[in-house]
Amino acid sequence: MENIELYMNRIGQQARAASRAMARADTAAKNQALQLIAAAIRRDADILRAANAKDLEAARANGLAEAMLDRLTLSDKAIATMAEGLEQIAALPDPIGEISNMKYRPTGIQVGQMRVPLGVIGIIYEARPNVTVDAAGLCIKSGNATILRGGSEAIHCNQALAALVKEGLAGAGLPHEAVQVVETTDRAAVGVLITMTEYVDVIVPRGGKGLIERLIREAKVPMIKHLDGICHVYIDDKAEPRRALDVAFNAKCHRYGTCNTMETLLVARNIAPALLPPLAELYRVKDVELRCDPEAAEILAGYPLLKEAVPEDWDTEYLAPILAVKVVADVEEAIDHINRHSSQHTDSIVTEDYTRAMRFLREVDSASVMVNASTRFADGFEYGLGAEIGISNDKLHARGPVGLEGLTSLKYVVLGQGQVRQ
Amino acid sequence: MENIELYMNRIGQQARAASRAMARADTAAKNQALQLIAAAIRRDADILRAANAKDLEAARANGLAEAMLDRLTLSDKAIATMAEGLEQIAALPDPIGEISNMKYRPTGIQVGQMRVPLGVIGIIYEARPNVTVDAAGLCIKSGNATILRGGSEAIHCNQALAALVKEGLAGAGLPHEAVQVVETTDRAAVGVLITMTEYVDVIVPRGGKGLIERLIREAKVPMIKHLDGICHVYIDDKAEPRRALDVAFNAKCHRYGTCNTMETLLVARNIAPALLPPLAELYRVKDVELRCDPEAAEILAGYPLLKEAVPEDWDTEYLAPILAVKVVADVEEAIDHINRHSSQHTDSIVTEDYTRAMRFLREVDSASVMVNASTRFADGFEYGLGAEIGISNDKLHARGPVGLEGLTSLKYVVLGQGQVRQ
Repeated sequence: MENIELYMNRIGQQARAASRAMARADTAAKNQALQLIAAAIRRDADILRAANAKDLEAARANGLAEAMLDRLTLSDKAIATMAEGLEQIAALPDPIGEISNMKYRPTGIQVGQMRVPLGVIGIIYEARPNVTVDAAGLCIKSGNATILRGGSEAIHCNQALAALVKEGLAGAGLPHEAVQVVETTDRAAVGVLITMTEYVDVIVPRGGKGLIERLIREAKVPMIKHLDGICHVYIDDKAEPRRALDVAFNAKCHRYGTCNTMETLLVARNIAPALLPPLAELYRVKDVELRCDPEAAEILAGYPLLKEAVPEDWDTEYLAPILAVKVVADVEEAIDHINRHSSQHTDSIVTEDYTRAMRFLREVDSASVMVNASTRFADGFEYGLGAEIGISNDKLHARGPVGLEGLTSLKYVVLGQGQVRQ
Repeated sequence: MENIELYMNRIGQQARAASRAMARADTAAKNQALQLIAAAIRRDADILRAANAKDLEAARANGLAEAMLDRLTLSDKAIATMAEGLEQIAALPDPIGEISNMKYRPTGIQVGQMRVPLGVIGIIYEARPNVTVDAAGLCIKSGNATILRGGSEAIHCNQALAALVKEGLAGAGLPHEAVQVVETTDRAAVGVLITMTEYVDVIVPRGGKGLIERLIREAKVPMIKHLDGICHVYIDDKAEPRRALDVAFNAKCHRYGTCNTMETLLVARNIAPALLPPLAELYRVKDVELRCDPEAAEILAGYPLLKEAVPEDWDTEYLAPILAVKVVADVEEAIDHINRHSSQHTDSIVTEDYTRAMRFLREVDSASVMVNASTRFADGFEYGLGAEIGISNDKLHARGPVGLEGLTSLKYVVLGQGQVRQ
């Protein structure tokens, strides 16, 4: 292959040119492309499985861990889900061109805002072939061009999927360069992608902490990303106990490996002796290890998987059946602990007290703040966005689950009749 | 002075702590602080003038250019304008805490978004003391803490203003560290400010291209900024000639040194012979130099300040009575030229043709896109934002004139009754 920098720059130029055509593409053409891709995926399921088999074979030969193989595998169900996902995106309203807040000004001009695509979106992900199709679908619908850089383990599968995406784009009269899959597994390609600010408007990294930390250090293009999901539930002493048990159990045990899983439980001193023992009964069934501060440890003495918490526990994303537990005085101490230790992803209070609920909502500085609900709800589908390209912990631009709107921007539109500035 | 890095880190820590108090400050307290500062500025006008005199004396001794001295001077009018500006900000609605789009989801949770401050905003500007007060006012109202780093030429004046800001904050029961002025003129302070991502959420640079280019290279903290204002007016052959003359004259001649001033005029071939000569008559009165492509040059032969355009002219922000002029075939060529050469700041079409107007609005990828209006309207006050901290050419977060809302973010709010994820 030619020099990586030249190769990536050519991809960038093509993406920039395609982004102009995508920005003016009408809704019908974008939806048609999505439907054609979905149909092609169903039609070529055998070809996709064969490409996936090649990836899996290479991955096994390279001794990839079982969990990674699992994510890499394109099952019949995964293929069907990809196709359905595209059809769901086609059914969503088109965000592009929407004009809002048009108002007359005293000078006689009318001023409002129009929603427009960001331009070119670079997506960097690991060995999950479904991301190729999900991301392509979201970018097409939002009128963006995209450059996809998937994990090298999925290269055959990603190329097979890319061919179907290009077929669908061309079938709808859209430029096939609107979705490009980087065809080299050379890691240097990522380094170029995240620094070519003239061709790429935003990077969406999807992957583990190691990948994202590296990208943060090296990127020049802005990113929509989250690094950690250190989520908290605070059980207030005015909590309805049934709700507290439900939320605290679900937030930890519904799934362990997701970023919106609770990692630290805070319990008000007044309710801790009554609440922690029945809650521990629930966790015991799931073999959840509890890392407790001295007060919680005293209340839970005898719990089989009890450990004393060390300071690092308050800043750890376990992604496992492990939970840090701390007794706090009140909502004030809870908010203070959360604003210090949370990764600003998702935090929830369980309480029936109106003033404390309002205070928690206002003062906890996280992308999602909840009252009497499981942190597991922090998700684009659950929030009604229809689809999600990722979750952002940043405050600029998009915050929380990022759907189609997060891939757009607003420009000002001014309508006049020849007005000039006085 | 101690080590610059330690000093800036301490300022950053204090700002972060103050930002928490500001985020929960109520509207009345923030408005009271603004009014107290305005009153203090009027009361201490003499002290401010004396501090300014010291700066001016030093600046003259250092041989500062007349234009710089002009900007540095704090006239009676400038003092009154600062105080009035604060009162205007106090009168604006408080953006913080506003909840929008609360909707029930099928799971029974309610999901919406709450407007919250960004946190800590660093403002880097040159020798314009009024920016100290304007920026402080906008940050206070939007519930942010701010670190101000003004030009070293204005250091005495800025410190005197900072004392009044702190007095007003304290008088309203708000932490005086919510507004901090960097007290060293050491340039290294800027380098620390733009890289301390743990304490600063966004940088707003206000200044010339040299300053901003340097910051782009070195910053790690995200910025709300614009670099160039290469604005276009395209006169379509379906333009109403009177409107075309008004807009093209005002966009160039209303003020030369502003970023929303037109730098390139595009004229449709069919109307150029009829329109350019009377337009040139208007420019001639103002001694505007016209840098023309060959077609425009032929039409304007005999214009006293005519030059042949070179390729760089299409990419130059003159900030002077100079205008690049080009004849184009149609709206398509105009859009293509603009998307290639515009700095994505503000571009305007003059036409009575509906389809071309709509196409221009949709396809020109700039922060402000106008029909039949002077580019000079691209301004926070003209757009009705009430105040402006700057103009952004970026697509992420805020685009175009940035008012109070641009200093805020949206977090998700979820209200439940004990719901868990299935």
